[in-house]
Formats: sequence, C-alpha cells, structure tokens
Amino acid sequence: MSILESLHWRYATKRMTGERVPQEKIDIILEAARMAPTSNGIQPFTILVITDKKLMEKIQPIAYNQPQITEASHLLVFAAWDTVTSEKVDYVFDQVIRERNLPADALTDYINQIKGMFSGFTPEEQFNWAAKQTYLAFGVATTAAAIEKIDATPMEGFVNSELDKLLGLREKGLRSVTMLPLGYRDTANDWLANMKKVRRPKEELILELN
Amino acid sequence: MSILESLHWRYATKRMTGERVPQEKIDIILEAARMAPTSNGIQPFTILVITDKKLMEKIQPIAYNQPQITEASHLLVFAAWDTVTSEKVDYVFDQVIRERNLPADALTDYINQIKGMFSGFTPEEQFNWAAKQTYLAFGVATTAAAIEKIDATPMEGFVNSELDKLLGLREKGLRSVTMLPLGYRDTANDWLANMKKVRRPKEELILELN
Repeated sequence: MSILESLHWRYATKRMTGERVPQEKIDIILEAARMAPTSNGIQPFTILVITDKKLMEKIQPIAYNQPQITEASHLLVFAAWDTVTSEKVDYVFDQVIRERNLPADALTDYINQIKGMFSGFTPEEQFNWAAKQTYLAFGVATTAAAIEKIDATPMEGFVNSELDKLLGLREKGLRSVTMLPLGYRDTANDWLANMKKVRRPKEELILELN
Repeated sequence: MSILESLHWRYATKRMTGERVPQEKIDIILEAARMAPTSNGIQPFTILVITDKKLMEKIQPIAYNQPQITEASHLLVFAAWDTVTSEKVDYVFDQVIRERNLPADALTDYINQIKGMFSGFTPEEQFNWAAKQTYLAFGVATTAAAIEKIDATPMEGFVNSELDKLLGLREKGLRSVTMLPLGYRDTANDWLANMKKVRRPKEELILELN
C-alpha cells in the first residue's frame, strides 16, 4: 500500500479484539518513533510499553473508561521530559560527540546556545517544547502503525496528572502527553469502523502563496 | 523501502540543490498531512506552500540565513490556529454532520463538551494545543517525504513573530509553528550528509512496564 492508502486505511479505532500484535510489528513502530526527527536531535521523551492487563485495567478509568485501553494488545504511553536542564542537554550531546568521533569541544558554542535558549524558558515552557517534540514522534509512530497494518488510537483523552501518579512518571522526570493503544479493530462492534473519514478540504487547509 | 529504511535514509538536510520536486510528490506530502489524525479531528492548522524565490529570500534572514530556505524547491510553513473558539469548533463539526449524514443535533453534547474544554483554556493554551496537533501532522508529513524520497528539513529555528508578520498570519488567525523545506540533498556541500545518524539508545528511550 502507498503511504496515502495506509493513512486512509487507519482510523482512531474505538474497539479492539484483544488479539496479540506480533513483537516484530511493535518493534517497527517503536523504532520508527526512535528514528523520528526532533529539535536539535534532543528526543526529550520516553515511550512506556504496557502489556500487563492488570495495569491496563487501572489506566482505563483514568482514560474515561475507553474500551481500547484493555482491548489493545500493547498500550504505548508517550511521556515528555518535565524540564530541559543543562545536564540533560550535556548528556544528549556527549553521545553525539562520542558517536561521531568529534573533538570534545567541537560543539561547545552550539551547546551553549541551546542551553541559553532553555534557560530563558520557564519549566512549563520547557515541558511544552518537549511535548511538541513528543507529538512529532507520536505522528511518526502512528504513521508506522498504519503502514504495518496495526490498528491504533491516538489518544489525549485521559487525566494526565492521574496517569503520571499511577506510573510514577514525575519521579522519573516525565509527564504523560499521549497514549497509543495498538491492536486489531473489532469491526462488528466499532461504531466508527465504517464511518466516512472526514477531513477539512484541501482548498481550506492548504494555502499556496505564489 | 520499508518505513524504517525510509526513516534511516532521511536526515535534516542542510544544503539542497534547488532542483524542482515534481508536483505529484508535493501533493502526496500535503495529502499525508491532511490525513494526519488530530484531537477530535479538529485539524487546527493551515499549511502554506511557498515556491516564489523572492519570498523565500525574504524568509531566509528570519530563519538565521539557513541555505535550505532558498535552495528548497518548495517551502512549507505549518501554522496553527491562534485560538480555538466555539465558532471554529462549530464550523468543523458542521462538516462532520454534513458528510456523515447525521441528524443536526446528533453531536450536540459532544460538541458542547469540547467547547467547554476550550473555554477553560487561556488563548495561549488554546494555541499550544493547536500547535501540538500541528507537530503531529508535521511528523506525518516528514515521514511521507522520506517514503517518497524527497529531502526535507524539519525546522523550528526561525523567529516566529517575524515570519507571522511577513506572511500576514495573525490577520488570518494563525501563528507559525514549524517550516519544512522540500528538495534534494546537495551531498557534496552538506556537512551533515555523511554523518552518522545519532539517536538515544532504545534501552533508554523505551521502557517496558511488565
């Protein structure tokens, strides 16, 4: 299937069958998210992978009892850094310097510029920046799932603070941003399965400036 | 190529040849962005398409003189709604009701719930929510470009307020979020073309909770 056929095939699956998604498909989706571009390559997020049904059952009420939470094979939680500190920036660029065999001071000016930018941000602005990068990777993961014919439900309908508490995310320096249940559509029981996909018209969404 | 091969092939292209990208490739990338999922299907953004070299030259200093701005074939500007008003929400769902042939009042409770959520947001929070949806679509567009073997530079390094002014975005109820120059890599002159792609290790970025 072409990329457009895959994107037409996918939809925000409301009911899933519970069938297990093969590990190699999950690995492709996670690897796609890891390969996603982020600003300055900082990748300010962690993706949590949940398959434990008991944990899914605890998450369900936090997500307004949406059935996909427990009907999914795997539940991904995308969590962004709560702050972007100089230590975290150094940690990321130490790896870049190491892997590209650069002189230790090759990126000093560039790194200081990045640190300067973040030091001008409030902690909430730092988190918001990190959350935006997370949405970008989330878009890449959602596209990868569609290409691999795995159903998924891009989800921001849950109480972030409660999920953070349940999963101990703040202690890890993280805050939940989105969730992505992965599984197989239960066409017979999903009211959305056969609904027309609605998108704002091209003429309205895209503006040629010439 | 598989999705992972495409994502390995792509990189944030620093120099482009200026060669023209065929219209059918541009259409695929724009259509992928249009098909991207967004929260409640609201698609709170506009994508501007720029091919006018004179306009690109005016944008370049706003983007710290990055050469891709003028070396690109097409320059996409992703701009998010500056606010999410009840009128805009109604406008979006009027289309859903029309295209799905639903009774006029079928979604009233759901729409009121959405409006209630946004009315609890400050204008800046409304814009931030819209910007996050824009990053999601931006991730989908970036993936589509890679799959179609079109080079691209995901870019947030520019002065948003100046770009907004130049393009008259605030008058359109929009604020610039990201840019995506599209074109072909100039391997001979691009310092990044043959550098190792660096990503945070899987063991660190992905956390299995079982």
